[in-house]
This record gives sequence, C-alpha cells and structure tokens, in this order.
Amino acid sequence: MIDIMGIKALTFDVFGTVVDWRGSVIHEGKRLGSGLLVDVDWPAFADAWRQGYEPAMARVRTGELPWTKIDDLHRMILDRLLLEYGIEGLDEERKDYLNRVWHRLAPWPDAIDGLNRIRDRYVIAALSNGNVSLLTNMAKHAGLPWDCILSAELAKKYKPDREVYQTAVELLGFPSDQVMMVAAHKHDLDGAKMAGMRTAYVPRSLEFGTRHVVDVEPDDRYDMFAYDFNDLASKLGT
Amino acid sequence: MIDIMGIKALTFDVFGTVVDWRGSVIHEGKRLGSGLLVDVDWPAFADAWRQGYEPAMARVRTGELPWTKIDDLHRMILDRLLLEYGIEGLDEERKDYLNRVWHRLAPWPDAIDGLNRIRDRYVIAALSNGNVSLLTNMAKHAGLPWDCILSAELAKKYKPDREVYQTAVELLGFPSDQVMMVAAHKHDLDGAKMAGMRTAYVPRSLEFGTRHVVDVEPDDRYDMFAYDFNDLASKLGT
Repeated sequence: MIDIMGIKALTFDVFGTVVDWRGSVIHEGKRLGSGLLVDVDWPAFADAWRQGYEPAMARVRTGELPWTKIDDLHRMILDRLLLEYGIEGLDEERKDYLNRVWHRLAPWPDAIDGLNRIRDRYVIAALSNGNVSLLTNMAKHAGLPWDCILSAELAKKYKPDREVYQTAVELLGFPSDQVMMVAAHKHDLDGAKMAGMRTAYVPRSLEFGTRHVVDVEPDDRYDMFAYDFNDLASKLGT
Repeated sequence: MIDIMGIKALTFDVFGTVVDWRGSVIHEGKRLGSGLLVDVDWPAFADAWRQGYEPAMARVRTGELPWTKIDDLHRMILDRLLLEYGIEGLDEERKDYLNRVWHRLAPWPDAIDGLNRIRDRYVIAALSNGNVSLLTNMAKHAGLPWDCILSAELAKKYKPDREVYQTAVELLGFPSDQVMMVAAHKHDLDGAKMAGMRTAYVPRSLEFGTRHVVDVEPDDRYDMFAYDFNDLASKLGT
C-alpha cells in the first residue's frame, strides 16, 4: 500500500474527472435550441465537439499549429459543427457565449465535497488542458475550491506531454513523487507516471453517457483507485 | 472618473499590499529567538531581509543570475543575515522553516473582507514576485480567497518587468485595460500602467513600521485610490 503520508499535493484532471462536460453541454444546448430554426441532437453535438478536441490538440502537439489555447480550439471545432448541424443565425456574441459553455461545466455530485475534504490536509490544484481563464471561471462558477490553478497553458504543451506535469510539479515546489495526479483517463495518468508523479485512478462511468461503456476496473499500474472523490478523500486519510 | 464597469479582473501585489510581511517576520523571529544564544533585533532583521530582496531580484533582472525564485533569493539573503547576526545552531530543517516564514505572512486586517467583497463581482488574482508555491501556501494559511494565483514565476521575470504583467493579462483572458493592478507601491503600478493595465493605489502606512513615514497621498497617475481594501471594494461598487 502506498504511504499516503508522503503525498503533499494532488493535481486533478478536470474535464470528465471533476466536471460532467457532456451533461453540461447538452443542458445548455437544449436551452439554446428552443430559439433555433433547426432541431439539434445535442447529445451527438456534445460528443462531436469533444471528439474534435483530441485531434485539435494533436495538431498543436505535433507542431502543425503553434500554441493555441483550448478556448480557441473549442471555437475552431464549434464553427465547423455549426455548419455541419445547419445552425444559423447566431451572432458573434452568442457564438462566443456558447463556446464558453466549457467555462460553466457542472461538477460531478461528489466532486466538491471530496475536494473540500482533501483540501484540509493537502494542497489541491487543477491540472487541465483547459486554459487558465477557463479553469478560473469554471472554479468561480461551480465553487471548486482549488488552492491554485495549473494548466497545460503554463507549459504551452498539452497533456500527456511530459512538460505539463514537470511544470506543475516545479510550480508546486514538491518532489514529483510527493504529488499525485488524479484522473479518470489512463493516458493522463500514464503521462504523470512517466514524469515521476504518483497516480490515482477515479473512473467516471457516465462521462460519455449511459450508452457508452467505460472500463471502471481498478488498474495495478496506478498507486490508488477510488470510486469517486469522497472515496478518494477517505483513502487519503481525510 | 474611471468606468468601473469596464473592469473584469483585478490583480494584487501581495507583500506589503495584502500581507504585513514585517510584522509577521518579527513575530516569528521573536518566537524563534527565545531558543537562541544571541539577542536579535528582529525589527532590524526583518528590515534587512526585505532590503536584500530588491538587489537580489535586480541580479536576476539584469541577467547576472539565471531565473531564481523568491524562496531561493530569500534563502541566500537569510544565510548572509544569520552570519551577520551571529545566529548559530539552526539545523537545515529549522533554517528552511524560518525561510518559509514568507509562506505564512498574515494579512492586513481589512484584506480578507475586502477581497471577498471584490470577488463577488470580479475575478481576483494574486500577482506577486513570490513564487507560485509560496503564494499557494500563504493563501491556504491565511485564507486569502484568490480565484487564481499568478506570479512573476510564470513569466520567469520580476515585476516591474513588462512581461510579468503581460503574462498575467494573457492568462486571465481579458484585454489589458479590463484588468486593474492593485498595489501599495508606485513602481509596481507604473509597470502595470506601461503594460496597459488599469491601476489602483492602496498605500499601506505601516508596511515599514511606525517609524518609517510612507507617502499615503492619492496620486493622479493612477485610476483609483483607496485607503484600504474595504474602501477599494466600495469604490469598485461591491
């Protein structure tokens, strides 16, 4: 068993791990939809928006695009989807507002309680591919109690590139093995592990909706496994 | 008069503006002092420590030293002062603890109330020459309610170098004239102004102790003047 007393800080993936991006995008889409001329399949729209995200980041990671923050990648994908879905008549202000739905994502029901418990004993930080302003607005909107907000933007690289984890660890001021990455995604944890961090796997079975089956089994590759953030708080002794 | 509705975010200098570094260092010094063999003039010690800070940063700003974070600059100055003051017998752990007094500085009495009021309507961020981990620990220790923590460390330059303000504004995601720098020090506000930011001057008459006279007059160079953070909150319409 891991010596939990060695851990000083935890960094958290955000999209999918802390907040329910899919439910939030669908919810806002439906509200927007009543004023549109077309009938939009918002679950499919949300999935398509998210599916555009990895390829867009890949273009930055390979150098095809210069450093581009997530707000701008989200907007590139959104502009394409508005055409594909035949959504017309949104002025710039409304497009920008819709694009910022990612600043207004709702936390999973256990997230804030768990974070508050963990925060009592450890430093807790966001460590997301989302840009700093997105994460700041989201924390303010949702009441996420981060001690500090770290982001891929600070390294101008995207997870799982090693520099993102290294930059975060350096800014937190602890040795890498005293910082634990928490994520619902194995590729993120694998990146953190490569950078010498501890890892906690908290799968989120509903991230992609009820029809998408997520592997929620514990995995020996990681130092800790938890069912949700309250379980994680308990396993961290808080 | 400034149109306060145009402001979206405020960045705050921390040492001296939000927290009373001098009183805090003296307080911890006196507690430490009872276990020492020598009698230390802690107010003078605190002043000397702080006086070493600008020249140490200047060595980084001119390129004489590579990027070095404040924790390490504080330690360089501390090691010299321990010799000068004849303070012996501190092991590495105690020296490190003393050096981290800068992580444990106490806020001015009005700071937290004022910040909480301002935070209701604006994004509030630290923007200090202190490193991210120092500011994170300080916020946790003192209960400072930052929406996010920004630092000179993110630009690897020290205020008043323009890059520090530019980096902060970029990370906050607002045009520079929608972000207001709040400081008790004119050179900091002048730097922010050069970077296109709005400025609020909040002098702290007791920063250097009761025997040191601070100019606390309003100054037309800046967009706003406040007596303390509650006054600032009121002037910001919160």
